Amino acid sequence: MPHDNRPIGVFDSGLGGLTVVRALRERLPDEGVVYLGDTARLPYGTKSRDTILRFAREDADFLAGHEVKALVVACNTVSSLAMPALELAYPQLPRIGVVAAGVEALLGLERRKRVLVLGTSATVNSDSYRRLIHRVDAGVAVTSLACPLFVPLVEEGLVTGALAESVIRHYLAPMIAAPPDALILGCTHYPLLTETIADMLPSSVQIVDSAAACAASVARYLTENGATAEPGAAEPVERYYVTDMPASFFQLAQRFLGRPVARVDKVTVPE
Amino acid sequence: MPHDNRPIGVFDSGLGGLTVVRALRERLPDEGVVYLGDTARLPYGTKSRDTILRFAREDADFLAGHEVKALVVACNTVSSLAMPALELAYPQLPRIGVVAAGVEALLGLERRKRVLVLGTSATVNSDSYRRLIHRVDAGVAVTSLACPLFVPLVEEGLVTGALAESVIRHYLAPMIAAPPDALILGCTHYPLLTETIADMLPSSVQIVDSAAACAASVARYLTENGATAEPGAAEPVERYYVTDMPASFFQLAQRFLGRPVARVDKVTVPE
Repeated sequence: MPHDNRPIGVFDSGLGGLTVVRALRERLPDEGVVYLGDTARLPYGTKSRDTILRFAREDADFLAGHEVKALVVACNTVSSLAMPALELAYPQLPRIGVVAAGVEALLGLERRKRVLVLGTSATVNSDSYRRLIHRVDAGVAVTSLACPLFVPLVEEGLVTGALAESVIRHYLAPMIAAPPDALILGCTHYPLLTETIADMLPSSVQIVDSAAACAASVARYLTENGATAEPGAAEPVERYYVTDMPASFFQLAQRFLGRPVARVDKVTVPE
Repeated sequence: MPHDNRPIGVFDSGLGGLTVVRALRERLPDEGVVYLGDTARLPYGTKSRDTILRFAREDADFLAGHEVKALVVACNTVSSLAMPALELAYPQLPRIGVVAAGVEALLGLERRKRVLVLGTSATVNSDSYRRLIHRVDAGVAVTSLACPLFVPLVEEGLVTGALAESVIRHYLAPMIAAPPDALILGCTHYPLLTETIADMLPSSVQIVDSAAACAASVARYLTENGATAEPGAAEPVERYYVTDMPASFFQLAQRFLGRPVARVDKVTVPE
């Protein structure tokens, strides 16, 4: 059986994509990972389509220069807007986006008549989740809601407590009264609020884990294409690059990744 | 008396600097203004010194290319960290920063023994306000507090109401019990929260208006150097440039400027 020992490239506007790296490392411990977080220009979710497309291409250029075998778009905003642009720029490089992966996981649920998607302004405005869901099942009622305060709340580490609850209530109050069947946390920062959000909703609401869904998508792609790494052939590489504040990334990585990273390098993108 | 009809250059990471433009237009109606808001890379206040210095130089390069007679640094973060770097890059171009202007206004107050400075993480970490205040009066007790949720709150338009009050209380609770003599809103976004903040503090707390102080500094510089525009010589120019989302800038400008703008152009910085 053929193998491909090159690493998987993962990028995000910042640290959030580490939730996807965590899921990848748990599911595919033999695979190497090269991660890029564009911390100098984050957030992406409040910016325009044109600017997001430009940033996405520049991030992908960086990873392509590191000989990756696949491009994992961990950022929901980029995954919502830039997949066609990335396909044009890198037709030979397989691209797996967190949005399509989350939609696939949602469609596998038994109860999914009414779905709520929480995301950044850019993700919600792109209507990406609804469009992808309706390609398979137009009968799903999809409501999307932009929650711009969630990212700074998570970055401040305020994921529980009175203020987090006030912010969540501000956005979700109408949903608490009429809860959906399933909730997609359509931004890699939001999973850190999962427990606090879950505590405020009826237990019947199923929360889709996009990071795990994304790792499952990658696993399937690699297996189907004979592109998995040879087990035990070599210690899998794990490289972390950011465009700003490597020290802060180093500290916060543990919160997203569940363990410390060995090393973080600062790079300029575009180079 | 000599005159200089070239416009004043003003820059900020985004829209907040428009509060300075508003003060400039009110105080100096004959002066032209060229404004740059780096909306593609905002916010600056959560980023590193090196990155802020690079962005500041690139923004100044853009304005210098527009033949401005002075450089107004409306961004507190840049004004806290990059004034020496801008002096090195543009020794011939007068530079007026909002931080020094705010400090001057504070020092003109009668009661100013205990001062609270609210700002971004980068501004607070730079310790710029305390250092400038202590150059003149080391007897002032300066407390600085980073309020990272204020910027997204203002950008969401949530400047009054229960959520704004929860966020303000989160940061200011200890200060509400032991109020300072004066409060500096050390970020151009924060003045939009002035009323809500003032309602939560005793009326004895004096709030320093950095935008008005900055306009006063510019007026004094121009007068002292014979560099004011000739009154009535020509309609003063007013140009607005942003690096992303001109339509959104166009809409939100009214909130910061108090009136609509005629036109906004999108540019790429660095060019």
